Amino acid sequence: MESFLERAKAASREVATLKPGVKREILEEMAEALEHGSDRIIEANQLDLDYAKTHQLSSALIDRLLLDEKRISAMAKSLREIAQLKEPVGRVLEGWVVDNGLRIEKVSVPIGVIGIIYESRPNVTSDAAGLCFKSGNVAILKGGKEAEHSNRIIATLLQEVLERHNLPKEIIALLPDSSREGVAKLIVMDQYVDLIIPRGGEGLIRFVSQNATVSVVKHDKGLCHTYIDRDADIEKALKIIENAKCRRVGICNAMETLLVDRAIAKELLPKIQALFAPHQTELRGDEETREVIDVAQATEEDFDTEYLDNILSLKVVDGVDEAIAHINRYGSGHSEAIITENYTTGERFMDGIDAACLYINASTQFTDGGEFGFGAEVGISTNKLHSRGPMGINDLTTYKYKIYGDGQIRS
Amino acid sequence: MESFLERAKAASREVATLKPGVKREILEEMAEALEHGSDRIIEANQLDLDYAKTHQLSSALIDRLLLDEKRISAMAKSLREIAQLKEPVGRVLEGWVVDNGLRIEKVSVPIGVIGIIYESRPNVTSDAAGLCFKSGNVAILKGGKEAEHSNRIIATLLQEVLERHNLPKEIIALLPDSSREGVAKLIVMDQYVDLIIPRGGEGLIRFVSQNATVSVVKHDKGLCHTYIDRDADIEKALKIIENAKCRRVGICNAMETLLVDRAIAKELLPKIQALFAPHQTELRGDEETREVIDVAQATEEDFDTEYLDNILSLKVVDGVDEAIAHINRYGSGHSEAIITENYTTGERFMDGIDAACLYINASTQFTDGGEFGFGAEVGISTNKLHSRGPMGINDLTTYKYKIYGDGQIRS
Repeated sequence: MESFLERAKAASREVATLKPGVKREILEEMAEALEHGSDRIIEANQLDLDYAKTHQLSSALIDRLLLDEKRISAMAKSLREIAQLKEPVGRVLEGWVVDNGLRIEKVSVPIGVIGIIYESRPNVTSDAAGLCFKSGNVAILKGGKEAEHSNRIIATLLQEVLERHNLPKEIIALLPDSSREGVAKLIVMDQYVDLIIPRGGEGLIRFVSQNATVSVVKHDKGLCHTYIDRDADIEKALKIIENAKCRRVGICNAMETLLVDRAIAKELLPKIQALFAPHQTELRGDEETREVIDVAQATEEDFDTEYLDNILSLKVVDGVDEAIAHINRYGSGHSEAIITENYTTGERFMDGIDAACLYINASTQFTDGGEFGFGAEVGISTNKLHSRGPMGINDLTTYKYKIYGDGQIRS
Repeated sequence: MESFLERAKAASREVATLKPGVKREILEEMAEALEHGSDRIIEANQLDLDYAKTHQLSSALIDRLLLDEKRISAMAKSLREIAQLKEPVGRVLEGWVVDNGLRIEKVSVPIGVIGIIYESRPNVTSDAAGLCFKSGNVAILKGGKEAEHSNRIIATLLQEVLERHNLPKEIIALLPDSSREGVAKLIVMDQYVDLIIPRGGEGLIRFVSQNATVSVVKHDKGLCHTYIDRDADIEKALKIIENAKCRRVGICNAMETLLVDRAIAKELLPKIQALFAPHQTELRGDEETREVIDVAQATEEDFDTEYLDNILSLKVVDGVDEAIAHINRYGSGHSEAIITENYTTGERFMDGIDAACLYINASTQFTDGGEFGFGAEVGISTNKLHSRGPMGINDLTTYKYKIYGDGQIRS
């Protein structure tokens, strides 16, 4: 492992200084390599599918594993999109001159060596590799055991392109020891690895956060709220909450709890019940909600749960301040929305809550790199530091200061 | 501890939303409170000094502990300077509108609860408190045991000002359990604490980095190099290296290793020896250096050591590429300098090395928040993520996205 990581670190200096045009060209060639190699990919994927069927994995999981011509094309297309992103390295973030004439520039640079730990979908292998490469980083990829053969052939095809350009294949590498012990080793190798991005179940994320000495950017839970204020436009409100809950229920930016202002609860709650009835959303309300509509009881635990399911908690609150207090207590700091036409109330909500994304009069499901206009999706960080919220490719860079002098010494 | 941290987290919401003018006013009052309370501070400080003398602590340490009228004035002055810094919260870092009309703003916000762990100087207590307060954060301060009484009275004086303004005193709080066990508990409380900044010896920093689940911004070692290239202006070079080594030898941005281009080594090394002779700097050279000048032998270990002392390692290298390779291998990613008049060589050096600060034709001792024009000094980060290099008060903020809609739902 250690000699592998040494080579990865050495490779990080090579990829860091590639010219933008060269990186774009290589990414285009990688896209082509996936297309030309589709037979080899499908063959390897078949081994994973056989394994999955023998071990009776769920049909949902098997579907996520499956690679066919169409999905391979999508992977190639995604690499081509990454190729076309605006160059993330070398952006001058700030620049100024100090009294003695030193000219200081703060310039974006690659992070170095990034470990990405993910689960079943093999397309993550090429996406993550492409994003890291475009941003001048080495990617150390650790996919799920069930996608082992697929991940290996995808990485091999990408590495063949690197080697044609006389670049070390460690620029895109699979973690040699892909067991839990291998991960445990990787995340404490802070002399070689600069960042770990775990994407997967809560158990994985907890394991990595608690044991890593390397910096971690988490993609953790989203317990998102929407608050409907007394000054809401009710028609907008109903459309937005329907979207925030039902567009997709199993994603981190879906609404899990709906807070309703007491001043309009009696009038509004029946409309909410009617709105969600055709979606067969299970509603669970607090005592005050249940005085108005007939729904199941929401317990303390409900307000603390990310359902990722077609279930919604309801709570009546005494205006925006109680909504803010509830969200700051139970929220996961992901995405929170207020529906109001009142300027002061809206600003109070946006300022009073500590979360990555605060919405006024829009659906929380917009929390997404693509929707934010970042292009390719790196993920949605639940960290407060380094990156927060939707991550674009620029989030895979850090910075250095370049200081230009003509002989200055410090007095 | 847990109930204390709960109160600290609650307090973080209050300090986060204070208006800039109010924060400035409170900081001015805090400065006054230190001046008016100078008798109480000196009295408490005497207890620490007595303890230090009884326990035969070094005279250097005792000097760092000592507070007198002059030093208390300096602490007050520093708070007034912090008061006048440009407001760090609420800066719109970016803003744009996406296709559907959602207006997205990326806005700086306080980090939340920041734990600062430091050693003997009691002035850090008011500096750190002031910087955290100005940036809208709660400061949990853990100073050295030897400064316990001084730190307590300083914190109390600042808290009295908070209470006069009906603010919770936990906005500026000393860690209740200031033992090593207390620190061990604090750094895993990631549900309450958002950032830990350890400032102190290597042992402390290693302990915190290895055991924290909270994010850590380290202020670690600086093993800084200067490389004198064949195309250097020798007069500039000599002035710069004298400053980089001798201005102060015990600080993290001091030069520890000097690399000399083989093409000019024979001519230059005797001048270097003569330059450092009056400073009584101990020179240690590699074999090739010792063929030209008579100095002690530099071992592999020397090139890997941050002396923080009046000692300098010397090595002859074969041009800029070997200099880059040496620095990427032995450097600590802090501050590195090249002396050259050659454009291409200079750029190659600045781009090829992975460090926080790269200098051309200037002394590495400029790596400092004050010299960079940041105003008050938060420290110099050796992290690659969140903050890198000199930290200004803006580094004590993170960001949130504020998204302004008029009813948008996601398709």
